[in-house]
Amino acid sequence: MAHRAELIAVGTEILLGSIANTDAQILSEKLAELGIDVLYHTVVGDNPKRLREALELARTRVDVIITTGGLGPTYDDLTKQTICETFGRKNVLHPELETWLRELFAQRGRPMTENNLQQAYLPENCTIFHNHNGTAPGCAFCEGGVHVLMLPGPPHECALMFETGAGDYLRALSRDVIVSHTLRIYGKGESEMEMLLRDRIEKMTNPTVAPYAKPDECMLRVTAKAESREEAEKLLKPAVDELMAVVGEWVYGVDVDNLESVCLDLLKRRGATLAAAESCTGGLIAKRLTDVPGASAAFRGGVVSYTNYVKNHVINVPQAVLDEYGAVSEQTARAMAEGVKTVTGADYALSVTGLAGPDGDDRGNPVGLVYIGLATPEGTTVKECRFGKRTREHIRQQSANTAFDMLRRALQ
Amino acid sequence: MAHRAELIAVGTEILLGSIANTDAQILSEKLAELGIDVLYHTVVGDNPKRLREALELARTRVDVIITTGGLGPTYDDLTKQTICETFGRKNVLHPELETWLRELFAQRGRPMTENNLQQAYLPENCTIFHNHNGTAPGCAFCEGGVHVLMLPGPPHECALMFETGAGDYLRALSRDVIVSHTLRIYGKGESEMEMLLRDRIEKMTNPTVAPYAKPDECMLRVTAKAESREEAEKLLKPAVDELMAVVGEWVYGVDVDNLESVCLDLLKRRGATLAAAESCTGGLIAKRLTDVPGASAAFRGGVVSYTNYVKNHVINVPQAVLDEYGAVSEQTARAMAEGVKTVTGADYALSVTGLAGPDGDDRGNPVGLVYIGLATPEGTTVKECRFGKRTREHIRQQSANTAFDMLRRALQ
Repeated sequence: MAHRAELIAVGTEILLGSIANTDAQILSEKLAELGIDVLYHTVVGDNPKRLREALELARTRVDVIITTGGLGPTYDDLTKQTICETFGRKNVLHPELETWLRELFAQRGRPMTENNLQQAYLPENCTIFHNHNGTAPGCAFCEGGVHVLMLPGPPHECALMFETGAGDYLRALSRDVIVSHTLRIYGKGESEMEMLLRDRIEKMTNPTVAPYAKPDECMLRVTAKAESREEAEKLLKPAVDELMAVVGEWVYGVDVDNLESVCLDLLKRRGATLAAAESCTGGLIAKRLTDVPGASAAFRGGVVSYTNYVKNHVINVPQAVLDEYGAVSEQTARAMAEGVKTVTGADYALSVTGLAGPDGDDRGNPVGLVYIGLATPEGTTVKECRFGKRTREHIRQQSANTAFDMLRRALQ
Repeated sequence: MAHRAELIAVGTEILLGSIANTDAQILSEKLAELGIDVLYHTVVGDNPKRLREALELARTRVDVIITTGGLGPTYDDLTKQTICETFGRKNVLHPELETWLRELFAQRGRPMTENNLQQAYLPENCTIFHNHNGTAPGCAFCEGGVHVLMLPGPPHECALMFETGAGDYLRALSRDVIVSHTLRIYGKGESEMEMLLRDRIEKMTNPTVAPYAKPDECMLRVTAKAESREEAEKLLKPAVDELMAVVGEWVYGVDVDNLESVCLDLLKRRGATLAAAESCTGGLIAKRLTDVPGASAAFRGGVVSYTNYVKNHVINVPQAVLDEYGAVSEQTARAMAEGVKTVTGADYALSVTGLAGPDGDDRGNPVGLVYIGLATPEGTTVKECRFGKRTREHIRQQSANTAFDMLRRALQ
């Protein structure tokens, strides 16, 4: 049977909203890969009573408890003492940790204040996890069939300690391997997707399929459990194929990062280049493309033509087009795409002009009306989109997504 | 007495680590501002039994329960039914919500599948919170002295619903009025700020001062509690003045949104306009400026000169400058700022050229080296920044922040 885990983060700063519980996300993803079901995340403050209650509850409902935070030298770090009390273990000095700490401070040329020595104390008879990114070691022990792991709070310490110690400890508890593939979908909502697939999803047990909604897209994660990666992949293949047969039209990639990285990969494979002329998206398309490392191999650059002056003077949209049809028009989108393609010397070009709100324009065009152009070596197409009276952020992101999806379809 | 809250997020995708529990951080920060103590964060999956147990526990230990997630139309969204069962309320159709939903789908020109109608069901006799960013409304009710609020899971929906409904509901629970002012600081870290202000902060009781670290800046929030807004403001004034006397040099605004909105306001007040030429930031500066509604009154547009061809052909950086000094140089940054100012007809122009990584360039310049130019009617200045080998995202955001801060200081 699969192990069941609860993650307990200790830290008032999380309850105040000063920091996010990043450790929970990092560990959950890693535990899912190990086939350990995470059933609960809990956060309590630097409060021994509430931590103790959380631990008492956790030991009744899971068999793996992982705490994060509260191992450092400051006075509000009480995790260790409380865990020792709850599980009836002594908190003892581990001389090898004291030696390591004293050497660490000597190396850094800093005096070791006495409160730092607390970090050399851990429950007796535990598995020690060394901290390669900080001064607080972690550990694990098993008491009454419940595995208790303590990891440090700072996410880069927690993540590295998992890689170098805690992960192996947990891996040894289970024989199963979990493998997932994620189908990324654009242009079809979560609920439509579910209607199309509900019967299939409900019938599946291994692999399982879970739909997820993201702000502007959705995804299907297919997950299999088996004794080896190869076995898991064998289970996944027919399931992915079955899903693709139904929704493949809207799948822009499997196990990919996002629409823009798919576009950049397709361009690079062709040795082709891209430019963008942006009005209402105001640089968002360029920004998203250049978020991707190595974008310069395919993205030549762009123009944020936020005013008619820039449309006309920089990317040569004819003044007559602007006067006759207005900035928000099929004709302007076309001229923008063709203009930026020419001035940058790119093979492909995207253009966006529209109204992201909050106001419409003086020609009576409504918020949410956006024209998206795509110029290719074969010609130029323009799509009219009506996103409705949504937030500025939504209209801009959807405009960029639609532009990327047009390009992807043209390249695929 | 202060209210005590527990945040319960519902979503298997959080337990799988696919997404972070962002709502918990957003809400915790807002609740702290309202003087409500958040004692626990809990996350459970899409599992009615475990959600029910979490709710039963929560009602014994807090008097404000806020759930996030599980309000959408798909079959794994079970929050509403479980809450109704736990608190003995009927889940009933609210006809005004049905009308609203049908109109929303009609507006968007999409068919409304029947599962969407579930979203018009809410507990009887509840306070409805409208969703201005999605299709799932939220609500609140009070049962046996415990306030239960249900908010949607997607963070942009959750945050907006708090602003437009849930916040007022919670504010009304307390007689005291809480008023905060936030000093936004750029160019000084949280710990330096704390060192400068620690003694003052520790002495204050009402108002209190809390420093917050954001990824690329920090802020000081000054909060007063009083019987009226006027009383609170009277308490805040001398505290804000005292802090400004110490750290005012780095404060770019009080109660402002961000650096870019401060820049746009300063430009508008002068009737001046701005342009940007971006290399390594790749559109980020333009994107951040145009995130601000009404940016077009001051921002004329920009050029993403991601290749030397675009630097030379579109914004007229002399080929000789590129050949002699390279793209990443003080001279190129200067020519970019002056070039984009000319071609767009703007009064001010920012330029950025540098190495955001992961790789350096063939001239041996290191990752993190960035030149930032500012052209004004009085002349052009260029700043050399060395952000070090940090993430691409960090270097790009810090480059944009530094550019905005240069412009702000020039305009103020």
